Amino acid sequence: MSAEASGKGILLKADPIANVFRDEIKATLTTRPRPSKLVGILATSAAPSKFYAEFTQKQCLALGIEFVLRRIGAAADPALGEGDGVEEAIIEANEDESVDGIMVYYPIFGVQQDHYLQQVVSPFKDVEGLHFKFHYNLYHNIRYLDPKSLISSVPPTTAPEPAVEDQPPPGAVKSILPCTPLAVVKCLEHIGVYNKILPYGDRAYGKTITVINRSEVVGRPLAALLANDGARVFSIDIDSIQEYTKRPQQSSESDAQRRFHPRHVVHPCSLSPQDCLALSDVVVSAVPSAQYKVKTAWLKDGCVCVNVAADKNFEADVREKASVYMPTIGKVTIMMLLRNLCVSLRRPIDIIADDFGVHCAGCAFSNMVS
Amino acid sequence: MSAEASGKGILLKADPIANVFRDEIKATLTTRPRPSKLVGILATSAAPSKFYAEFTQKQCLALGIEFVLRRIGAAADPALGEGDGVEEAIIEANEDESVDGIMVYYPIFGVQQDHYLQQVVSPFKDVEGLHFKFHYNLYHNIRYLDPKSLISSVPPTTAPEPAVEDQPPPGAVKSILPCTPLAVVKCLEHIGVYNKILPYGDRAYGKTITVINRSEVVGRPLAALLANDGARVFSIDIDSIQEYTKRPQQSSESDAQRRFHPRHVVHPCSLSPQDCLALSDVVVSAVPSAQYKVKTAWLKDGCVCVNVAADKNFEADVREKASVYMPTIGKVTIMMLLRNLCVSLRRPIDIIADDFGVHCAGCAFSNMVS
Repeated sequence: MSAEASGKGILLKADPIANVFRDEIKATLTTRPRPSKLVGILATSAAPSKFYAEFTQKQCLALGIEFVLRRIGAAADPALGEGDGVEEAIIEANEDESVDGIMVYYPIFGVQQDHYLQQVVSPFKDVEGLHFKFHYNLYHNIRYLDPKSLISSVPPTTAPEPAVEDQPPPGAVKSILPCTPLAVVKCLEHIGVYNKILPYGDRAYGKTITVINRSEVVGRPLAALLANDGARVFSIDIDSIQEYTKRPQQSSESDAQRRFHPRHVVHPCSLSPQDCLALSDVVVSAVPSAQYKVKTAWLKDGCVCVNVAADKNFEADVREKASVYMPTIGKVTIMMLLRNLCVSLRRPIDIIADDFGVHCAGCAFSNMVS
Repeated sequence: MSAEASGKGILLKADPIANVFRDEIKATLTTRPRPSKLVGILATSAAPSKFYAEFTQKQCLALGIEFVLRRIGAAADPALGEGDGVEEAIIEANEDESVDGIMVYYPIFGVQQDHYLQQVVSPFKDVEGLHFKFHYNLYHNIRYLDPKSLISSVPPTTAPEPAVEDQPPPGAVKSILPCTPLAVVKCLEHIGVYNKILPYGDRAYGKTITVINRSEVVGRPLAALLANDGARVFSIDIDSIQEYTKRPQQSSESDAQRRFHPRHVVHPCSLSPQDCLALSDVVVSAVPSAQYKVKTAWLKDGCVCVNVAADKNFEADVREKASVYMPTIGKVTIMMLLRNLCVSLRRPIDIIADDFGVHCAGCAFSNMVS
């Protein structure tokens, strides 16, 4: 039954979007002297992580990417502890020159200790985009970077020129973006939320988007990314609502809406969740709870709804209001990760910074992301 | 009434321990060409943060340290949001060459986003020791570092020689340790838990210590620090108990207990909290809850109890069992921070790594810590 016939919005699966990227990756890989090598580190007995690892393996196999699954701790032996040996496995993969990219199946120890582990992964092999350096660039709307700057522990003191095109300037590469927020952006581009007529870097201008969840892995980077692309974003978390926007909230100048900050600014927001939803063209929910549901009655008619959580955060009747509903985006997320991996061989950067005890073998960043 | 007369253990205040370090800092400062400059960043309306900022100010004033309190966000104006502008204030202090050290009054946004902010503080000015690089060194028992390595975002690939003395080898400096765990160690040294007869780096050998809380700011680094110093440590958190130790758990060799790993290893532990306490010479509790109390009945007679939480985690009758009880260590913690700050001028390191866009003005690390 078509959406038109049922009167319901479209149920959009991730497959057609993922397929576009799969084809792109496949085409890229044919130009390669050797297959890319990804190491997956599975350190827990959690079923979703095991499933995700097997899914990664299947995708890699289909694309001719070498995938090595390292099972350690409770994933290798029930007698071992959850997460046992994970830091050592990351360090080994960092130092193995044959490895192009590393992915770690989280959660392992909980958000705090997992955040520590995310910093242990070399930024040169961080295909998930979870290293602090990439988050810093994202929050600061720094889209391109000098590859050499990746080996510095200190953020750059000089602000780079704002990006005006979707291609890095000579000598620069695109900064890696975290896979899940990037996958949401790619889905919204596919759906047409991003307006290609508008200039690069401001194509979500005119759109109001609610992002429910403000974790450092999904919600906050996503809200920042969308606001840096021009959207007005409501970031809803369990204890507060914030507004993310590049545009000034008040101004005496008539063309104020055309001027904007180089990156998003965060404002406290006095609206209720219901008010936010009533204004929102897009609602993205990533609440890690099977109980949490966005009320269909509160949605704006014809909005786009994207569920990023493992459980469904939308009610069963969401398509009574939504024009498009994506129940899951996982297949797009994994393509973003493999894309980050594959471009690593396209632009290997020969930084052997012996002075700093750093040896960067396969460099997992690129001119291809975002 | 003395402890002997009452039959109770000693109530040990932090003041005499803090005073030893205050005198040491004062002596160091007299040799300085200019006063050290610390910037405190207060971004919330929280009363404990305001109190701590005022306390820092008072300590700095007494020691002749220049202290600049930057009030921003809700700390400056109730109309502004909690934490508004804190990242910008950190970046400004990073770039201000007159600033030797930066301290930020947490919590601000919650553990995840606060962890992000801790990485924004330049490791060259991080007197709190919260940067990933210092945590990495702590967990890996890397006590000294080549100052140049601080500007690298990637952990060193070659393991350094294990530290055998309390003085860094030529060209190296001591790695910064996070202030609260370090303050606990200094208190335990003062109390005599650390045995000076034993070789440096193993002076807590023979001691069993329970640490209650496993956060990345206090509990986990403290457990690692104590285990790296030779103790057998039980790390108790809300959902699990782990054992941290350098020594092999089983061995066929008779002198196995004398051999040990270069750093602590974490094992799952099947003991109950009660079992752990019954074995422990020292109990350190840092649970952020007024409700949580360590049961006096479970303590080993004559143990040492240290409360690191803002609320009392021990019952009122703790001294019925404890030989020594420290209800608070905050004054020692602040001395560790000021010590980190002051040594920054003793060994300024002239790294102007223009190649990496890094300019390190006052370098806040030292040969003095731990």
